[in-house]
Amino acid sequence: MRSVSPSFVREILSAASAPGVLSLAGGLPPDRFFAADALAAACDQVLSRQGARALQYTVTGGEPELKAWIAERLAAEHGIPARPEELLITTGSQQALDLTGKLFAPEGIAMESPGYLGALLAFRAAGLEPRSIDARQPLGPQLSAAKKDGVEAYYAMSRFQNPRGSSLSRAAREELAALLQQHDLFMIEDDPYGELGFDLEGREAPGTIASLAPDNVIYCGSFSKSIAPSLRMGFVRAPEPIIVQLGRFKQAADLHTSGFLQLVLVELLTRTRFDLRTHLATVRAAYASQRDALVTALQTHLPDAEVSEMPAGGMFLWATLPESTSDLFERAIEERVAFVPGRHFYLEQEPPDDQMRLNYSNLTLDQMDVAIRRLAACREPRAVSA
Amino acid sequence: MRSVSPSFVREILSAASAPGVLSLAGGLPPDRFFAADALAAACDQVLSRQGARALQYTVTGGEPELKAWIAERLAAEHGIPARPEELLITTGSQQALDLTGKLFAPEGIAMESPGYLGALLAFRAAGLEPRSIDARQPLGPQLSAAKKDGVEAYYAMSRFQNPRGSSLSRAAREELAALLQQHDLFMIEDDPYGELGFDLEGREAPGTIASLAPDNVIYCGSFSKSIAPSLRMGFVRAPEPIIVQLGRFKQAADLHTSGFLQLVLVELLTRTRFDLRTHLATVRAAYASQRDALVTALQTHLPDAEVSEMPAGGMFLWATLPESTSDLFERAIEERVAFVPGRHFYLEQEPPDDQMRLNYSNLTLDQMDVAIRRLAACREPRAVSA
Repeated sequence: MRSVSPSFVREILSAASAPGVLSLAGGLPPDRFFAADALAAACDQVLSRQGARALQYTVTGGEPELKAWIAERLAAEHGIPARPEELLITTGSQQALDLTGKLFAPEGIAMESPGYLGALLAFRAAGLEPRSIDARQPLGPQLSAAKKDGVEAYYAMSRFQNPRGSSLSRAAREELAALLQQHDLFMIEDDPYGELGFDLEGREAPGTIASLAPDNVIYCGSFSKSIAPSLRMGFVRAPEPIIVQLGRFKQAADLHTSGFLQLVLVELLTRTRFDLRTHLATVRAAYASQRDALVTALQTHLPDAEVSEMPAGGMFLWATLPESTSDLFERAIEERVAFVPGRHFYLEQEPPDDQMRLNYSNLTLDQMDVAIRRLAACREPRAVSA
Repeated sequence: MRSVSPSFVREILSAASAPGVLSLAGGLPPDRFFAADALAAACDQVLSRQGARALQYTVTGGEPELKAWIAERLAAEHGIPARPEELLITTGSQQALDLTGKLFAPEGIAMESPGYLGALLAFRAAGLEPRSIDARQPLGPQLSAAKKDGVEAYYAMSRFQNPRGSSLSRAAREELAALLQQHDLFMIEDDPYGELGFDLEGREAPGTIASLAPDNVIYCGSFSKSIAPSLRMGFVRAPEPIIVQLGRFKQAADLHTSGFLQLVLVELLTRTRFDLRTHLATVRAAYASQRDALVTALQTHLPDAEVSEMPAGGMFLWATLPESTSDLFERAIEERVAFVPGRHFYLEQEPPDDQMRLNYSNLTLDQMDVAIRRLAACREPRAVSA
């Protein structure tokens, strides 16, 4: 029997959800951003207009109207060319990682480190151990060596990365696109936070590799952060032959993603009073303010925390301290503040232990200050009163 | 890149869905049995009572209230002991096969042949090739030999089987339960049609292996046939350590099944005017009548078709003809009637070619007669007019 070891991060998130704990650990969009009323209207409209037909089995690839909407948005908003035949609807973008893992198993994937743990788990569940790529070292030699060893795909997030909140510059994106073409490699470009780019006041917003090298990219998108996680709605955009293969794995995995929820989603986006542009503007402005509050709190209470890159979107900030963040976590959780020590995001056996991922999507501006103050207060080990 | 070959059955189902074709091929519950109005009410009630909370990420294992409902129903209606800790909610019961495939990969599963093709595809996607077990030959020697070769689990449906419509007798169930215990084997007991047993007028209804040997069974249930496929809602009942392992694969596969739809389902079952008992009585009576109409039509128009076992529930009947059903299919589809040739359900390279699966859940009583009449009319090859 194949076994998966329990995740320490799961235990961290469990500790972080205890009452009274201020959590910078998870990556949840806050409830207040879910359009419950408009979704209720969309459910009602779909069932009253389409009736029981909306509840039948549907095609594995996805509801045509939703795919058409996604194709248009990818092209118009993200510069990613997409025909409906190049799209597959998935049960959250997590499923896209499960399916690509199966496609490239047993030994075809390299992955950025530090990187998204859920991708690592998905690839391991497919029976493969991804090769680690250090995204802060030059990619060329690493991808070239990986290709020689049989790697066929490179998994990474190119903007608002989890865990580092980092985005590739235009030059870095162009270099990566060229490397993919030169080495005949696919990139699995995971972009769950792609709709959460902040207003950069004239500076160029981060783009995707999919827009530069669409023939070499398996692009994974999600509605979990822009609409609501519980819809479990994501998608893949890839060259058609890849979509055909992924569709076969998708059929074996869960036949299809809920057709009802697919119809509800496209109803919400096109035939309710919900306005995506306004909604995203609200979410982005809130996250940007919360990021700023986090940075201010760090400067005030943890002035020696080094922020590697100011996030231009998404939910996470990455900081380095002159001490063990694993040790700090143990004391922090007693002081009712939580974060994720950075070492858990590395593929390597002996990762650095002085880094931390701080989530800023959930706490209010006031809570952010309290949380970092608590963190600062427990930096010196203190006697625990009995 | 791991490749999955295109499924011939997919092509059959595609041909069967062409306009004017009377299909005995698929396995869809008819739209008229989906409670669209009650589901609309359930969606509204969940969102108005719970609001945005119902749209947040939820626990991988499943919504507690739904698990409690399933635990109670399994015990009360099916004699299967189940605590909530022994349950995992899955994205349709198809996902349970994906997860068990991962658990027992790379070589731990044997599977009944002929059997459910979706299970074969799920196990192959996990990188394993199931060992074939001929369910009509004595199981003891086959399971014993399989265990010696490293097999850890046996996949089968014990009642209303797909494709044969067959159910194990009490004696056969007791023998299988004893064999599992004797050889320390798991059974993956797939029971998607378990709620669709007909009224047998005093005769004993088929039971499950899970009720006899719960410590040795990974039981897979579904709401697709009893409520609606588009909810993509299924579950696994297994010993707790197995549920823990499957939960880790589940998290890597899609994090969790839509919490919103889980809440909607339990709302439908417990707090709307929908009454499951009445609903199932209607569905069962309709399918039983349709089965009878199919059998009558076969006796009338295809009197030499041999029906291996009168189905006591579910959606399928298995028949043997004195000719190639593959050849018959080619002519049948031109005559606008479809079925699935039996050979596609075998794991073996050279399966028998004189069998066929006939679905009776979709056609009306009148259509059933027309369909079999068309089938009889094309048994003799005829000149195709240009």
